[in-house]
Amino acid sequence: MSAKIPRSKDNDYSSDMIAQRQQFLEEKSGTTLEHTKRFSFDPETMKGNCEQLFGVAQVPIGVAGPLVVNGEHAQGDFYVPMATIEGTLIASYNRGMRVIRESGGVTTTVMGESMQRAPVFMFKNARDTRDFVKWMSDNFALIKAQAESTTSVGKLLEIEQYPVHNMVYTRFDYSTGDAAGQNMTGGATFVACEWIRANYPKLRSYGLSGGMDTEKKTSFVNSLKGRGRKVTAEIIIPRQVLKDVLRTTPENLRNSTGVNTLAAFLTGASNNAAHPANGLAALYMATGQDMANIGEANQCSVYNYVTSSGDLYYSITLPALIMATYGGGTSLATQRECLELMDCYGKDKAYKLLEIAAGLVVAGELSLVSAARTDKETGTNEWVDAHEVLGRNR
Amino acid sequence: MSAKIPRSKDNDYSSDMIAQRQQFLEEKSGTTLEHTKRFSFDPETMKGNCEQLFGVAQVPIGVAGPLVVNGEHAQGDFYVPMATIEGTLIASYNRGMRVIRESGGVTTTVMGESMQRAPVFMFKNARDTRDFVKWMSDNFALIKAQAESTTSVGKLLEIEQYPVHNMVYTRFDYSTGDAAGQNMTGGATFVACEWIRANYPKLRSYGLSGGMDTEKKTSFVNSLKGRGRKVTAEIIIPRQVLKDVLRTTPENLRNSTGVNTLAAFLTGASNNAAHPANGLAALYMATGQDMANIGEANQCSVYNYVTSSGDLYYSITLPALIMATYGGGTSLATQRECLELMDCYGKDKAYKLLEIAAGLVVAGELSLVSAARTDKETGTNEWVDAHEVLGRNR
Amino acid sequence: MSAKIPRSKDNDYSSDMIAQRQQFLEEKSGTTLEHTKRFSFDPETMKGNCEQLFGVAQVPIGVAGPLVVNGEHAQGDFYVPMATIEGTLIASYNRGMRVIRESGGVTTTVMGESMQRAPVFMFKNARDTRDFVKWMSDNFALIKAQAESTTSVGKLLEIEQYPVHNMVYTRFDYSTGDAAGQNMTGGATFVACEWIRANYPKLRSYGLSGGMDTEKKTSFVNSLKGRGRKVTAEIIIPRQVLKDVLRTTPENLRNSTGVNTLAAFLTGASNNAAHPANGLAALYMATGQDMANIGEANQCSVYNYVTSSGDLYYSITLPALIMATYGGGTSLATQRECLELMDCYGKDKAYKLLEIAAGLVVAGELSLVSAARTDKETGTNEWVDAHEVLGRNR
Amino acid sequence: MSAKIPRSKDNDYSSDMIAQRQQFLEEKSGTTLEHTKRFSFDPETMKGNCEQLFGVAQVPIGVAGPLVVNGEHAQGDFYVPMATIEGTLIASYNRGMRVIRESGGVTTTVMGESMQRAPVFMFKNARDTRDFVKWMSDNFALIKAQAESTTSVGKLLEIEQYPVHNMVYTRFDYSTGDAAGQNMTGGATFVACEWIRANYPKLRSYGLSGGMDTEKKTSFVNSLKGRGRKVTAEIIIPRQVLKDVLRTTPENLRNSTGVNTLAAFLTGASNNAAHPANGLAALYMATGQDMANIGEANQCSVYNYVTSSGDLYYSITLPALIMATYGGGTSLATQRECLELMDCYGKDKAYKLLEIAAGLVVAGELSLVSAARTDKETGTNEWVDAHEVLGRNR
Repeated sequence: MSAKIPRSKDNDYSSDMIAQRQQFLEEKSGTTLEHTKRFSFDPETMKGNCEQLFGVAQVPIGVAGPLVVNGEHAQGDFYVPMATIEGTLIASYNRGMRVIRESGGVTTTVMGESMQRAPVFMFKNARDTRDFVKWMSDNFALIKAQAESTTSVGKLLEIEQYPVHNMVYTRFDYSTGDAAGQNMTGGATFVACEWIRANYPKLRSYGLSGGMDTEKKTSFVNSLKGRGRKVTAEIIIPRQVLKDVLRTTPENLRNSTGVNTLAAFLTGASNNAAHPANGLAALYMATGQDMANIGEANQCSVYNYVTSSGDLYYSITLPALIMATYGGGTSLATQRECLELMDCYGKDKAYKLLEIAAGLVVAGELSLVSAARTDKETGTNEWVDAHEVLGRNR
Repeated sequence: MSAKIPRSKDNDYSSDMIAQRQQFLEEKSGTTLEHTKRFSFDPETMKGNCEQLFGVAQVPIGVAGPLVVNGEHAQGDFYVPMATIEGTLIASYNRGMRVIRESGGVTTTVMGESMQRAPVFMFKNARDTRDFVKWMSDNFALIKAQAESTTSVGKLLEIEQYPVHNMVYTRFDYSTGDAAGQNMTGGATFVACEWIRANYPKLRSYGLSGGMDTEKKTSFVNSLKGRGRKVTAEIIIPRQVLKDVLRTTPENLRNSTGVNTLAAFLTGASNNAAHPANGLAALYMATGQDMANIGEANQCSVYNYVTSSGDLYYSITLPALIMATYGGGTSLATQRECLELMDCYGKDKAYKLLEIAAGLVVAGELSLVSAARTDKETGTNEWVDAHEVLGRNR
Repeated sequence: MSAKIPRSKDNDYSSDMIAQRQQFLEEKSGTTLEHTKRFSFDPETMKGNCEQLFGVAQVPIGVAGPLVVNGEHAQGDFYVPMATIEGTLIASYNRGMRVIRESGGVTTTVMGESMQRAPVFMFKNARDTRDFVKWMSDNFALIKAQAESTTSVGKLLEIEQYPVHNMVYTRFDYSTGDAAGQNMTGGATFVACEWIRANYPKLRSYGLSGGMDTEKKTSFVNSLKGRGRKVTAEIIIPRQVLKDVLRTTPENLRNSTGVNTLAAFLTGASNNAAHPANGLAALYMATGQDMANIGEANQCSVYNYVTSSGDLYYSITLPALIMATYGGGTSLATQRECLELMDCYGKDKAYKLLEIAAGLVVAGELSLVSAARTDKETGTNEWVDAHEVLGRNR
Repeated sequence: MSAKIPRSKDNDYSSDMIAQRQQFLEEKSGTTLEHTKRFSFDPETMKGNCEQLFGVAQVPIGVAGPLVVNGEHAQGDFYVPMATIEGTLIASYNRGMRVIRESGGVTTTVMGESMQRAPVFMFKNARDTRDFVKWMSDNFALIKAQAESTTSVGKLLEIEQYPVHNMVYTRFDYSTGDAAGQNMTGGATFVACEWIRANYPKLRSYGLSGGMDTEKKTSFVNSLKGRGRKVTAEIIIPRQVLKDVLRTTPENLRNSTGVNTLAAFLTGASNNAAHPANGLAALYMATGQDMANIGEANQCSVYNYVTSSGDLYYSITLPALIMATYGGGTSLATQRECLELMDCYGKDKAYKLLEIAAGLVVAGELSLVSAARTDKETGTNEWVDAHEVLGRNR
């Protein structure tokens, strides 16, 4: 028979309830929670962040840097906290940051923003669906007013409509200020949908989540239309820097990207880069982001070419970068401190953090892409070697 | 001018070096690292896990359960530690676990295993490429011997070959025991490739990472061929349980899945589920898994139908589930304790942990999929409400 | 040494030049072009349709029908000419048309229209790109005026913009009247681009075809945004009709579609139907459409469910159906006659033809999907049998 | 009330029945079938090719060439018959053939072969599915013997297995000699499946067509595993030839391909080329191929780079090229003559025809890719101009 986890309706974050849960788990498992018990934060602050709290995961944080960013919001040297348990990861990103420094920094640009909710509206048949598509377009201002009545921050920018069969999948696109915005947009869209239901009698039914936001997933609709913020990081790497630091040439790096892009095209991969998820996960974990978003934030494209002066133009666009600097996990104890290390905590800091994140991804790519090439002359392969020396042989 | 992060070749994990780095960061940022400094683990254990260590991320852990699993390796009640900062997440998974309990448990099966490295081999032209493909097949036993000479655990199961143009992309598929295996397979494949280079003079060059492993990305090749372990979790939910616990019917849940699957098909999404990344990220973080793998582990398919007796067959297959129970992050202080809560730490436990993870994903889906449907009768929508009450309005 | 094909600048469609080419080819190959010479059309009409003309392909045409269409433009019984060399094809479509007749007809709806040209605009960096995106939106009316100055029919409806890296891929979406519109839109877009170049000095360069129209290819952008016309064909098939004509049930057909859709989702297939390309190719060939468009017109989605009264709702949406009823191949001798058989030749007939085409696809699906299921009771499989009897064993 | 198309069980291809149908259609439509009636072939030969025959589509054929092919099966100059109604198409392919001639020819290689049938096998649960996967592998020889008992030509090469949920999707891969093989493999797979059903009692049911062959569709599984024949065409184009004939450089063409490949990657397009479907459709129509296969044959990848000597390596791999030289449509009157023009009719000619087809695709790409770039110096754009002059303004 299943035993119930100790809970309390009124008092679930009290020391007593936490201790009861710890004891319950220790008894059930025969394990002593020596380290898991040792958190320094006030458990009351976990309300709204973590139910049935009993302890803490302690994840080591290292620092890489300085990362030189020439952004519109992030400008200068940044020491980037990375929470990770993957050996060689920080060393690798560090090496890429050196390439960036010696090239004069990475230029970053937030190109667009939209956080989605994606209701689907069902009708009797395709003709009713087509009529509704027109009605939605004609009544956008009214729907927008409804959605925005629920939030002081979120703005409904657009309603993408994808009619098919006897329904229309939509994407309600919002700007969300410093928040990632998944909850804010959920409430706003619900109110808008209810208004639509009340005002469009031919609507048979709707589902608040029809799936076309592809939340926490990668998809082609996100690569095209973006989700959260679309951020580009660009750099022109002088030929000499590539030679000195990475022992490669613009042409070789260009060709490597060509081969990897073809693989990504042939397999329908979510990115044609090497390992954007690594750096993003480490930064997300240190700064209190929603880790499940790694499922979509890893989507990106790499593009590069040899410039007319023989250097390398190198660029990464991340179409679904979702990060917050305020509220939620960002206000927790260590998470907030890590944001403050980069002066990224609080309001009006989201774009700054996004620019640092995009620059970080470039650092990781520059280090790994070139290292993964076998050097025929010397017979060594640094990518394997680095793992052997710094990592463990799992 | 950029200031250098304090480092020491010999002694980088000493208390002194860590303190120097903390001081350096505090001075640079004007922030006090009150909480980030408070880790209870021995920093020396971070060697091979995290370079340039200066502190800890404290992530709250709650517990959900019991999750009743009828696996081949995991059997019985499990209390699942979930490290998360997303409000309502644990509450939601908990509700799904109740559905599972009342249905008699979720049945889990590890269907296949293969961890990849994916070198690409370049030739003068397509004919040389075609010849090499045949040679690789004919000499598989010799290549296998080379690869396996580097590891006592890893076994080379197959070499997938995808010839195109004047090169052949490959996937070296390994079994890797209790380890996730990315490093083990890297070294093994490097040795095999060097042997190939020495023994196949027409080989022009090769790249150790041609991109077709699609590591830490989603892709169609992974959905088809698998990566890490492919795990299926199945459950037959009695009609009455759906009605009582989720206030829905088998037919409604079937139709919701149909609508979501069509959206996933139309957008090329990495899964047709609701939010597998959420539960996986929380379990991964608690148990010391590589968080970047969320970038590929979220890939999955949902499949369900109404049985002849009117109940719901519901199944999720995760083709790229990568988890370890030994070595690396799993041996860290809190991470090991969380594994021990489920008796999943150490050798011969990987399949058990995978089965729990797959069951967890089912719990999350059952709770959220149904909640996201609007109830026309009552006008309420639980999915939005749950976020409003438990979460914050980001 | 290569011999040149006989040509004449002034007179290339004269009987003499055609005869010279025939003789040249006969001599080169030792073949007698007995049938290929026998065309009944006036070769002068081939100007603008086929260069270096020397003969004719004679493709047999059969007729299927009547297809009962409840369209907005096509209403009533249609006898559909199908040019094909695939045995059993017409028989199969005929059987599906019987299902449609006994269900009261197929309902068709043209849901949207847009023919694309897809220039890509290059800039120095992402910030210039972002600025241009805004400029394009602000100046849409002026760009539209430029594009429409080249055509009395085409209307520029929208410019989709997909900024990435230091460039923006676009899709110029047009309505094109009765024409398929690929050429009309090419000219219009060229003029618009040249105007943009003259008026936006920061534009570094542009390519008239950046590839995002995905012309004559399938793609996720076309499945989402449509290309040519998006047409839906729907039908409610009474349970009894499925039983009598196809010996199956709504539930079985629903489940078959579920299994096929999952396969399409897992493989990233261009449609989740059985064989839409077959019927479309036969109708396209008979009526003088561009056969290369089969490369994109086959893209579609099937969606169905069991209605509350126990019947089957069945629907197909074709997002990239490109057909013309005027100009080009449609005015050739036999092609025009076939259009006239359905009263579809000339101006203002395109939507009618599209509706017939969509209905035809439904007929083919209904016949084949069910036939491809093995009947466990009888051990027969009609799909294989039909090919054995009517077809040849290739 | 619907009128029935005249048919005769015994005698459906007699002149009388054809005339009755013509009269029926003429009366129904009020159209005179002047040209459609004028076929020169014997209608009796249409048995097994076209049911309910009433006439002919006359499609003009032009010739392009010579195409210089350095294949293993096709060697020398080929004059390629192209049936098309698209103005400028043949002119464009002709120009590409000139580039090929001046570069010394295009080198072609058939890299692999497999025609699929794709049954899906259903079980009670995932564990039974996993057991069956092993049983299939262990009993491959017996299954192969069953399949091959039905055909003297087809050979079962492999059974790909993709287990998921409680079923396993398969692809039975065959070699099929000179035939395209769709029917041959259908019969063979049916017999094999029936044998499996008789010998594996735990099999719950199976569907002969589970959808993973993705027949007449594009898909990632076909791009990876191939379907029909996988053919590569390669060419090294001297820098001077690019300059003289196409007024471009290796670097420019490389960059164009980079931009187009990125678009294809971002949209999940079925190829990253310009218009392979155009040339293939024209050759397929002239030579009696199944036109619906254009739906899958257009799938391909382009890959190129600047060689160390400054020339352009350019390559196209077509993974799903399906063509026949014997039986079916190839033996019809004009179709056979067109095959004979290239000495490609009859047994043992399939690979030759495939090599010509792949070379043809390269010709089309070389002409169009470069022409679609706007020349900033002159302000002209040849791709648009060519359509304006030779084509019609549709």
